[in-house]
Amino acid sequence: MATKLLSRFAWATSPFIVSAPMRIMSSPALAFAVSQAGGLGFIGPGAKTQDTETDLEEAKKLVEKAKTSSNYFGGSSPSDQSTLPVGIGYQLWGDDIEVAVRTIERFRPCAAWLYAPKNGPQDFDDWSRRIRQASPKTEIWIQIGTLAEARQLLQNTEKPDVVVVQGAESGGHGRAKDGLGLMSLFPEVADVMKGSEINLLAAGGIADGRGVAAALCLGASGVAMGTRFLAATEARISKGYQEEIVRASDGAVSTTRTLLYNHLRGTFGWPPEYSPRTIINKSYEEHTAGRAFDDLKALHDEALKGGDSAWGPEGRTATYAGAAIGLIHDVASAGEIVHHIREEARSRVQCLASD
Amino acid sequence: MATKLLSRFAWATSPFIVSAPMRIMSSPALAFAVSQAGGLGFIGPGAKTQDTETDLEEAKKLVEKAKTSSNYFGGSSPSDQSTLPVGIGYQLWGDDIEVAVRTIERFRPCAAWLYAPKNGPQDFDDWSRRIRQASPKTEIWIQIGTLAEARQLLQNTEKPDVVVVQGAESGGHGRAKDGLGLMSLFPEVADVMKGSEINLLAAGGIADGRGVAAALCLGASGVAMGTRFLAATEARISKGYQEEIVRASDGAVSTTRTLLYNHLRGTFGWPPEYSPRTIINKSYEEHTAGRAFDDLKALHDEALKGGDSAWGPEGRTATYAGAAIGLIHDVASAGEIVHHIREEARSRVQCLASD
Repeated sequence: MATKLLSRFAWATSPFIVSAPMRIMSSPALAFAVSQAGGLGFIGPGAKTQDTETDLEEAKKLVEKAKTSSNYFGGSSPSDQSTLPVGIGYQLWGDDIEVAVRTIERFRPCAAWLYAPKNGPQDFDDWSRRIRQASPKTEIWIQIGTLAEARQLLQNTEKPDVVVVQGAESGGHGRAKDGLGLMSLFPEVADVMKGSEINLLAAGGIADGRGVAAALCLGASGVAMGTRFLAATEARISKGYQEEIVRASDGAVSTTRTLLYNHLRGTFGWPPEYSPRTIINKSYEEHTAGRAFDDLKALHDEALKGGDSAWGPEGRTATYAGAAIGLIHDVASAGEIVHHIREEARSRVQCLASD
Repeated sequence: MATKLLSRFAWATSPFIVSAPMRIMSSPALAFAVSQAGGLGFIGPGAKTQDTETDLEEAKKLVEKAKTSSNYFGGSSPSDQSTLPVGIGYQLWGDDIEVAVRTIERFRPCAAWLYAPKNGPQDFDDWSRRIRQASPKTEIWIQIGTLAEARQLLQNTEKPDVVVVQGAESGGHGRAKDGLGLMSLFPEVADVMKGSEINLLAAGGIADGRGVAAALCLGASGVAMGTRFLAATEARISKGYQEEIVRASDGAVSTTRTLLYNHLRGTFGWPPEYSPRTIINKSYEEHTAGRAFDDLKALHDEALKGGDSAWGPEGRTATYAGAAIGLIHDVASAGEIVHHIREEARSRVQCLASD
């Protein structure tokens, strides 16, 4: 299964490492760097759906520029150049399907990652059909976090090419209440999906080669990481935010799922099934101690004016991140991250096999 | 590290599979069957500490009887017969150290598994010292579920031989609020313990060879399973309870952590850091719907009289189990379970290595 998936992305190398479409932070440069390193990079949803057009335009320019270099995909360029070697992510509850489909038709990213529908599986069917009509070679990737969603997808008319199974350890928006650690969730989803032609990727709480190797053992055809790539030089992220990703540890106690920071930022409308994991700071501490939202909002907005000091233990700003933050100790280029993690995963498996 | 650990248990085979000391349910027969299959079986804490004496007496008889058979440990009996080839578990907050030490001195189990202290790391130090004085060859295994506990253990005078790292997916009593999925928790604990001579085992949410292989990739020297062995023929468990383990699936929504069933059973006194994961049934459903505890207690006690129907979706009795229940589909002998899971884990790693 893993080999079959890899063969669909000519440049990709095993184990298959994917950078997840983190809203705004997964920049075109990040996505393309991950693909160039033999993985697959996704551009994140933008503040508005329109932004993905700008981002794909930028990705296209990066690709065109790289093509003029002898180093484009290590000298062996993808044979099928009818799609762009990056993916694009959408949050279905908030994104505009018309704009999205028009953009995909124009730029033909190799994959579209669909998440967080407002109307359940029906939205996945609608988006998948429209995208496939507009760009038949764009793969449909769908992110889920529960067994129920896996069962629903099998009933859908438009079967996804890939299902990303996200464990409760994940950062950013995941399941609010019915999430489960990947160690138990993934194999149970895999058993339900068995017999379908759908490839499964693992996501959530993985930030190094040990986690990648573990996910492959659970049956994943590859791994999607988010938080690890927040500490990539190409991420579209404030320095203060990035430094906090490197600094923080002990995800069990230093992160939590809460809607507080969405509300402080003025973000409303996520379907109730979802809640984001964030690194805890002053806003959350004072919120749980009973301080009024209006106070917290004023302090939050004031903190934002302070730039990078808005993040960190004394900060007040959303710092969405996964529970594996304790495994991230440095900022590196996305290419270095992919190469390093891939080698670590490979050697872990080889070492166990010779035990 | 894994090889070094295995060499201390002459009969053990890689990957190292351990049956956890589940209170009452981990019987002498279960523990010995797991050891005879090349793993290591632990007898659970009893209702009273005194019970472990009876259980170790029974285990000793099983061992003596097996010794007269040519099939004792497949014909190659453990060279060091100064310890009993089974372990024993204690819940430090409730167990009597004097009775425990006296029992260990008399029966010399090969390992003692210590869990849930009332006075934090000091209790581990006290119990470890006393046990080592009484039976120097009895290994000290300590179960933790947080990074903070790992750091504390490194400061202790009496270093454990093995630390069992339990993820939030686990069944029965685990961390109440600061638990985390094994996928992120294990590697971070491993990094903190690096450089110590302590072997790490993984536990929580693992019920098949995929999970065992994954845990080895994360850096574990072996895996401890509880719930999987509730569906062993040798488990000391009601038929209704065991059938529910086999029936239930989707651990994310069909299990939860709650103290309700402890209280319904009249169990009080667990330190506040702990709360048990159980399969949800009528008691919990009605509790969350607001029904009074006294009502629930009366119905619970009445249900108990009904025997096996006290468990199941319409039941009212504690059904402690891990989130991996969806991976357990049959009752088998402990030996078959160990052999099957070990083969599955081995072939998973070999298959990945040749990819």
